[in-house]
Amino acid sequence: MLTLYFGRGGCSLASHIALEEAGADYEARQVDFATNEQQSPEYLRVNPKGRVPALVTPRGILTETPAILAYIAQSFPGAALAPVADYFAFAELQAFNSYLCSTLHVAHAHGRRAYRWADDEAAQAEMKRKMPEVVTACFKMVEDNMFRGPWVMGDQYTVADSYLFTVAQWIEGDNVDTSLIPRVMEHRERMKQRPAVQKVLEREANA
Amino acid sequence: MLTLYFGRGGCSLASHIALEEAGADYEARQVDFATNEQQSPEYLRVNPKGRVPALVTPRGILTETPAILAYIAQSFPGAALAPVADYFAFAELQAFNSYLCSTLHVAHAHGRRAYRWADDEAAQAEMKRKMPEVVTACFKMVEDNMFRGPWVMGDQYTVADSYLFTVAQWIEGDNVDTSLIPRVMEHRERMKQRPAVQKVLEREANA
Repeated sequence: MLTLYFGRGGCSLASHIALEEAGADYEARQVDFATNEQQSPEYLRVNPKGRVPALVTPRGILTETPAILAYIAQSFPGAALAPVADYFAFAELQAFNSYLCSTLHVAHAHGRRAYRWADDEAAQAEMKRKMPEVVTACFKMVEDNMFRGPWVMGDQYTVADSYLFTVAQWIEGDNVDTSLIPRVMEHRERMKQRPAVQKVLEREANA
Repeated sequence: MLTLYFGRGGCSLASHIALEEAGADYEARQVDFATNEQQSPEYLRVNPKGRVPALVTPRGILTETPAILAYIAQSFPGAALAPVADYFAFAELQAFNSYLCSTLHVAHAHGRRAYRWADDEAAQAEMKRKMPEVVTACFKMVEDNMFRGPWVMGDQYTVADSYLFTVAQWIEGDNVDTSLIPRVMEHRERMKQRPAVQKVLEREANA
């Protein structure tokens, strides 16, 4: 039995979808960012970083989306969510996930969480102003150089698809020019046809 | 035969050390950031993101430090650079690497590369001012909640050690209060005793 801590609309959606696709025996618990629950003493005992996702396993607690996605793929090989036996292909998949985590998600965070890197309000406002341009450049990089189609890594659906779908939820809120990224937009629609995605979206919406 | 593209003083040092520790047959090529070579047409054909590291393999090119480190560990199991057969332990290692990549390295980048997230010079200056505080908080998180000792993951030396050592090279330049992170500082000294680390540091210094 696994327990996933998620925040509604957060990057934890990627792990949530992956668990569902894997057919895992798991429970999903919402961390309420509206009440700052991620900074509560109870949650900081789960994840001292005060972030989501966190995955409680019988062995201990895992954090960080790329690590959790690889763990799910490796732990449920029957679901074929990653080319786990092919180290090169697995590394390509991990490079994709790492880019979303360390570059695209970080660019997005400058819109609403600029306080992490600046105290001055004018500086925060400047980061928020530039954010759509930076996030758009990240999605263009995915569109032009990383996305293979019909799924992220090509013919095989993988955990990278749930991750791209997750960050693509932010596109309208971040004022990304969607005309520049037609394949990413088509992928988002393709993902919405998957029963696991529909089930998880409904669960998070009603949490 | 593998070819690693590295930038002197950059995060590519982690992959460089890992290749050396693995006993890999590889060549290391410097990308000269002083002349902006990372943005040259030639290098953009290697890595369209214009960043280091990039690892050229017979199968294709890999980017992103966490992905390359996992690839090296999986490809050279005899070097025992990660608990590759234990998915949970491997995920813990990957969570450590992901934190360095997406949080600590990003905090560091606000010191000298704030232009990525703001055009206004005053905003960039504010990010640079706050950078030491943010980077110090990241190293404190590693010190208090992530580092096990004597190596990052405990008794076994792993690729996470080369990554921590790499970001620890930036500590003085980032004005981190070293009195707060004694275990990280001891680890850095421990790493300097390793022949592979000495060899790679000398090679990068003379590149």
